[in-house]
Amino acid sequence: MHDLRLDRLRRNMADAGLDTLIVPAPENMYYLTGYDGWSFYLHQCLIVSRHSPRVIWVGRGSDLHVAGTCPAIGEGDAFAYPDTFLHADARHPYDFVVQVLCDAGWNRGAIGVPMDAYHFSPAAYFALQAGLPDGRLRPDGNLLNWQRVVKSGQEIALMREAARIGGAALLAGARAVRAGSAVSATAGAILKAQTGAEIGADGGYPAIMPLIIDGNGPAVPHHTWSSAPHAGRGPCIIEIAGVHRRYHAPMARTVFIGEADPRHRRALEAQIACMETVERVARAGALAGEVADALASVLAGWGFSKTGRFGYSTGIAYPPDWGEHTLSIRQGEAARLEEGMTLFFIPGLWGGDWSVVLGETFVVGTQAAQRLGDLPFEL
Amino acid sequence: MHDLRLDRLRRNMADAGLDTLIVPAPENMYYLTGYDGWSFYLHQCLIVSRHSPRVIWVGRGSDLHVAGTCPAIGEGDAFAYPDTFLHADARHPYDFVVQVLCDAGWNRGAIGVPMDAYHFSPAAYFALQAGLPDGRLRPDGNLLNWQRVVKSGQEIALMREAARIGGAALLAGARAVRAGSAVSATAGAILKAQTGAEIGADGGYPAIMPLIIDGNGPAVPHHTWSSAPHAGRGPCIIEIAGVHRRYHAPMARTVFIGEADPRHRRALEAQIACMETVERVARAGALAGEVADALASVLAGWGFSKTGRFGYSTGIAYPPDWGEHTLSIRQGEAARLEEGMTLFFIPGLWGGDWSVVLGETFVVGTQAAQRLGDLPFEL
Repeated sequence: MHDLRLDRLRRNMADAGLDTLIVPAPENMYYLTGYDGWSFYLHQCLIVSRHSPRVIWVGRGSDLHVAGTCPAIGEGDAFAYPDTFLHADARHPYDFVVQVLCDAGWNRGAIGVPMDAYHFSPAAYFALQAGLPDGRLRPDGNLLNWQRVVKSGQEIALMREAARIGGAALLAGARAVRAGSAVSATAGAILKAQTGAEIGADGGYPAIMPLIIDGNGPAVPHHTWSSAPHAGRGPCIIEIAGVHRRYHAPMARTVFIGEADPRHRRALEAQIACMETVERVARAGALAGEVADALASVLAGWGFSKTGRFGYSTGIAYPPDWGEHTLSIRQGEAARLEEGMTLFFIPGLWGGDWSVVLGETFVVGTQAAQRLGDLPFEL
Repeated sequence: MHDLRLDRLRRNMADAGLDTLIVPAPENMYYLTGYDGWSFYLHQCLIVSRHSPRVIWVGRGSDLHVAGTCPAIGEGDAFAYPDTFLHADARHPYDFVVQVLCDAGWNRGAIGVPMDAYHFSPAAYFALQAGLPDGRLRPDGNLLNWQRVVKSGQEIALMREAARIGGAALLAGARAVRAGSAVSATAGAILKAQTGAEIGADGGYPAIMPLIIDGNGPAVPHHTWSSAPHAGRGPCIIEIAGVHRRYHAPMARTVFIGEADPRHRRALEAQIACMETVERVARAGALAGEVADALASVLAGWGFSKTGRFGYSTGIAYPPDWGEHTLSIRQGEAARLEEGMTLFFIPGLWGGDWSVVLGETFVVGTQAAQRLGDLPFEL
């Protein structure tokens, strides 16, 4: 599997005119080699050459064993910088990467680097630039993120398991929501269920912590939790992902505490109608912008309006985001949907007075989009 | 409190010759204004000028309300870019930051930017550089991280509460460790306890997920969990943080499943001796390198050796790291300890055959260092 992914990457690199690629994003490292672990808080990367079957790993010494025992890397191609490179003024981990590139003879030609990733800083960029006078740094065009956008059947099966875990976690959260009980207790129920241990599943940590949002008052869409109590009544939004072997299936539900305000109920019904529309229109060949138009007009038909993104691509993820930073479902977007894309749709209505949100992940098919999970839209 | 921090920042900026500072790191944004939320997966920043009392926030529209209601920011100084800036080729959120800087008249002089932070990319750097021909981008020298390194009494009180929550969570994890039970169930017990709900505390999400490491075999220091069972016997390492209002108190303990191997027990006793040495030597005025020397010689006295870092500064944190990226406790380090620094010491022994790890957070005093929490070293 990793061999096929690497072969495809080398072909994509050829098309993009890249000789060498620096891969610091943990989701791309995992995709290419299975290398996993909470080591992305320090500088680390894979290095791939179009002209060689080797895959080089560079990271901290403490992680050398894990990298060296990845079959796609191999002991001889894992190189560790000493701890004297950590948060030091005099030397940067990418000075060490330069040395590794030179030793491999990969210091010439076009060297692709991510320009807008969490794990590749200006200091890393300038260390490579200064150390590689015979090479030319080139934006990688998010090459690997785009390679990940269409999923194989095997990947979709992993994501369905993620959706099963997520569904159980969201249900555990919904059951914990009670007027006056601590929001942190709801978070605890979700976090515990996300591990999958209670349903015999293998659940990993999510790239985004549970968002538990009081839907009364102005929009606070990225709130996690505190020990403050749930409101006495009104909408409570839970947005989470189920995670299985780093594959994410994000989802969002709104639970009503007490009897629902008719307007809030309509907002939920409008978004359920959006999901039915997604099933129909988010099929292979559709333009992302057309799908967004369809959802905007469903909402308009119910008397609501929304600008901004209606959804985006998801899959392998590490904190801080479960989005793949590739396809966005928004009006005017010209990208075309393909079979096997996995898209998180969230036509949520966050407002000045109240918020109600529904979100679900779908896989794009030739005739229709299909939900990954089966958690009811109304809990 | 935020006013005092901002005043001090402006003095530090003057000393560093900076007119304007771009602040994208969520821990620094929180420190300066209290702005909080899982919005750091997208570009956002504060902007501080040495010549103005204003604090400007730039982020996504969905987070505008939270920013605008922060007293340290204020509604008129919160500016949101539209969703068309998200992961788009044609425009970058920092193009929008450029416009905000120009409108504020802060586009001249020396503009400090972080060179090696998670949330400031080469694309962000080059967008500022291209858009600010009248300004000069300058490395910020981790100015704000260094400003955070000495904690006030109020901050230390928050960190003691974090240590209390962490102690309860580590104990919950240790109680769940049993031969043959799923490691993910241990993770679930820890995650639930980290919310603090069970002890009436206000626990937040940790910057690093629970690390639960089978101490048998080669070192895998950054493993989180899976559904695989705990080993039948041997050391099991748990490394976590308690979190309260984003302040972290990291800690690590080793639990023995079955009877402990005498060598493993000695490794733990050696590290307990290290902690007793920390209490004595990690006082104001000591050099970081001297403290590391003292710990290395304690370990040597027990027949163990360790290179690399023995500890580092901790405090406010967001994923992916609870370290402050300032002071490192390692041999040869010339920085001097000051009263009120909070340091996570982890003289852990990760090896080729087995690993045993103990870690604890201390506050530096004039005569001695004091532990933040009171969880026993042996569980």
